[in-house]
Amino acid sequence: MAPRAPVVAVVGPGRNASAEELAAAEAAGAAIAEAGAVLVCGGLGGVMEAACRGARSEGGTTIGLLPGTDREDANGWVVLALPTGLGEGRNALIVRAADAVVAIGGGFGTLSEIALALRAGVPVHGVGTWELARGGSAVAGVRAVGDAATAVAEALRSVR
Amino acid sequence: MAPRAPVVAVVGPGRNASAEELAAAEAAGAAIAEAGAVLVCGGLGGVMEAACRGARSEGGTTIGLLPGTDREDANGWVVLALPTGLGEGRNALIVRAADAVVAIGGGFGTLSEIALALRAGVPVHGVGTWELARGGSAVAGVRAVGDAATAVAEALRSVR
Amino acid sequence: MAPRAPVVAVVGPGRNASAEELAAAEAAGAAIAEAGAVLVCGGLGGVMEAACRGARSEGGTTIGLLPGTDREDANGWVVLALPTGLGEGRNALIVRAADAVVAIGGGFGTLSEIALALRAGVPVHGVGTWELARGGSAVAGVRAVGDAATAVAEALRSVR
Amino acid sequence: MAPRAPVVAVVGPGRNASAEELAAAEAAGAAIAEAGAVLVCGGLGGVMEAACRGARSEGGTTIGLLPGTDREDANGWVVLALPTGLGEGRNALIVRAADAVVAIGGGFGTLSEIALALRAGVPVHGVGTWELARGGSAVAGVRAVGDAATAVAEALRSVR
Repeated sequence: MAPRAPVVAVVGPGRNASAEELAAAEAAGAAIAEAGAVLVCGGLGGVMEAACRGARSEGGTTIGLLPGTDREDANGWVVLALPTGLGEGRNALIVRAADAVVAIGGGFGTLSEIALALRAGVPVHGVGTWELARGGSAVAGVRAVGDAATAVAEALRSVR
Repeated sequence: MAPRAPVVAVVGPGRNASAEELAAAEAAGAAIAEAGAVLVCGGLGGVMEAACRGARSEGGTTIGLLPGTDREDANGWVVLALPTGLGEGRNALIVRAADAVVAIGGGFGTLSEIALALRAGVPVHGVGTWELARGGSAVAGVRAVGDAATAVAEALRSVR
Repeated sequence: MAPRAPVVAVVGPGRNASAEELAAAEAAGAAIAEAGAVLVCGGLGGVMEAACRGARSEGGTTIGLLPGTDREDANGWVVLALPTGLGEGRNALIVRAADAVVAIGGGFGTLSEIALALRAGVPVHGVGTWELARGGSAVAGVRAVGDAATAVAEALRSVR
Repeated sequence: MAPRAPVVAVVGPGRNASAEELAAAEAAGAAIAEAGAVLVCGGLGGVMEAACRGARSEGGTTIGLLPGTDREDANGWVVLALPTGLGEGRNALIVRAADAVVAIGGGFGTLSEIALALRAGVPVHGVGTWELARGGSAVAGVRAVGDAATAVAEALRSVR
């Protein structure tokens, strides 16, 4: 891991992820590693695991910020497992740790990570994820892109 | 405060709240107190302050879970100020503390509270707040109602 | 609960508390309530439960900042149970919530609360609790007193 | 960084560290890196910075779990800076992240990290740090050793 390498978070469902979401996550992880960036995620299964596997396939560094207190909860592709013991409160840490966030699919946990990132001013690029509106009008927030490679490229560009 | 009284959270913008949102928040706070429930919120200004003022006008109990470490940050209608020092991480605590959430208006911080509540299975009733969709289809989550009195009544009904 | 009443934390072991420690905790809780102050604690058993029972016997308000996410974990004398989901991380919240801390007996969890309080500048009065030294010399920190009534009286005096 | 390398935390004062404490911290960091372990710390100055400098002199990986939300707060020898936004609450994360803790010198923040580690069952080896007692009798907890090299060797042995 290069000192102060860019850090990109990949967020998305740990369970019930579709084959398409898992493939997108793996491609995102690989693209992050190829770019020399560090992958941070929640460290569990589904989208998190697929992203880690993709990053490791390119020799990248993967950080898992776990909700529980047991390092053994991390998926097998996490290089550094940090058990936070904060439950869903660890979602705030994932987005704070990142220069940019890539959201793939997602349930309410993912929505909380998107919201916390946008609140903190961290750019979010999304593939098949939440669309936000108020009063019937779309609200700018998540930048929707068509595929994982574009999401990572845009995320890294936003980091400048 | 009656032991184990129901706890209802009111969430919404601390700044840039509209007059309509502030009026709704004050009405929500008053309705919560009238029902003998405890109001929990983020303890700061805007919607949080209006809700606390409403609850105090009916002699209710108001709890402010502050993001910072200084109790003096609480608005003047907070009975019990708890400085968490967790920043936006305190949003997870607000929804965990509540039996039900009433969302009024809202920015990305409010969206994170909605998402964390839905993730934790805490019902959310909303007035003029976020609308959620994926793939162009609305996603059930926030139960939109027309006014604050209805939101509180539904929230308390959901607590059973 | 009077608005902005003083808040005193009682910290000590949840398990394996001695009869003497439980009696001291109950007396501390009663003294806190008699003075019109609010009791905050970890909300579980042992010293926490005894302190809550003492406070309730005098009609006081008791706040339990629980480590888990289930309100039902609170002892039966907690008026307001706040499930933090932070595990031992909730210890930092207990001391931040308090104007003063009374420590009774205690294991390493209690020691962490004492340390976090002293770090935050919150005065700690102790009954039969930790003694601190470095390089063979005692370090000022916990103010050791002989009984719970004195601990609470000194704690409230420190709040001014 | 090797996948699942052992993680050793170095804790100690960020300010007012003595020259002796800084030298011990630098030696500890170097020994951790030489052993192929990862250094985790609070990421700021004093003992934390000296430990990171030592680890980097041996090409090691250094993780800084910062109390604030700004990555720029990290000292110049931190490879991966994770801003937690938890204030002193991040102390719980440092010890949870580690297989073993080396404590050097220390104020009350360090004492909280020692206590949280012992509470979590993480072994603590200390150089010139806190001595704990109750009722006039020393309490086993911190394993006092004479120098940093021994502390790290013992810490790594405890990780087995």
